[in-house]
Amino acid sequence: MDKRINSIKGKIRTIPDFPKKGVMFRDITTLLKDREGLRDSVDIIVERYQGKKIDLVAGVEARGFILGGALAYKLGAGFVLIRKKGKLPHKTENHEYELEYGKDSIEVHLDAIMKGDNVLLVDDLIATGGTALAACKLIEKLGGKVVETAFIVGLPDLGGMRKLSHYGVFTIVDFEGD
Amino acid sequence: MDKRINSIKGKIRTIPDFPKKGVMFRDITTLLKDREGLRDSVDIIVERYQGKKIDLVAGVEARGFILGGALAYKLGAGFVLIRKKGKLPHKTENHEYELEYGKDSIEVHLDAIMKGDNVLLVDDLIATGGTALAACKLIEKLGGKVVETAFIVGLPDLGGMRKLSHYGVFTIVDFEGD
Repeated sequence: MDKRINSIKGKIRTIPDFPKKGVMFRDITTLLKDREGLRDSVDIIVERYQGKKIDLVAGVEARGFILGGALAYKLGAGFVLIRKKGKLPHKTENHEYELEYGKDSIEVHLDAIMKGDNVLLVDDLIATGGTALAACKLIEKLGGKVVETAFIVGLPDLGGMRKLSHYGVFTIVDFEGD
Repeated sequence: MDKRINSIKGKIRTIPDFPKKGVMFRDITTLLKDREGLRDSVDIIVERYQGKKIDLVAGVEARGFILGGALAYKLGAGFVLIRKKGKLPHKTENHEYELEYGKDSIEVHLDAIMKGDNVLLVDDLIATGGTALAACKLIEKLGGKVVETAFIVGLPDLGGMRKLSHYGVFTIVDFEGD
């Protein structure tokens, strides 16, 4: 058992009933502001992918940018921004996905990923997995290969980890019973 | 002259008339997706602040999170999220600032910064400096000390670099005549 994992779990703050009643919100800002917490989180993911020829780390707006920037730097890869609709300034590809009520859409620059690029998708947390799945589809639309998907926190009860199992899902800590 | 700087400048894409006519938008996504571009940008800023006892790197949502995450990791510091109003889940301090038309507000978690912490404020680009100045005020409200402010791109003609001169402003490349 990696001792760093319990330490990371202990630094994540739980906020009951946010953003709505009944939800236990897992807040990683308390982990990221802690120098050892940030270092250990990045290192654990780097140890898994070092030597796997990652060309690009793709991060999902906005919290996924923090972990993603650090991972891309440390892995010697480039960083790709996956953003909400209308935020990217150049030509984009987009992918629509279903929400609980209605639809949402994410985008990536058309020239951000080249055919055959090995792309690691990262975000801070995987819950229902809707956005992460859409991000994987988007990477594939541009010809990229999703090497795996990696998160600090997994919430297995919400189904996203199962939904993404085809791509492979790595999480540092899981909270069950959410 | 640092050879890396011309290389960085050449990797930044200029998009005319975005988001509105007459604006030359400096798009750093083409720099960040390039492994050497990302590495050199982070390294140049790290070289300036290594040994300066930075406790926290504060990044401004959303693009500032990419550079900020990498810098905090490499400097062995924690990372603090400065976000638009209503995005942070716990108790916050906020600071309002003037826009061209109307007002905007940014927030930070009340417990994100301790009195006396040495904080490096980072973002991808400094233009009019309104958000960066508000971020510095916010850091000070919590008792933090702004060591300096650092950006990949500076647009000196838009006045932000002058507005922040009290805190110190470091930029890797400047575009004049914007």
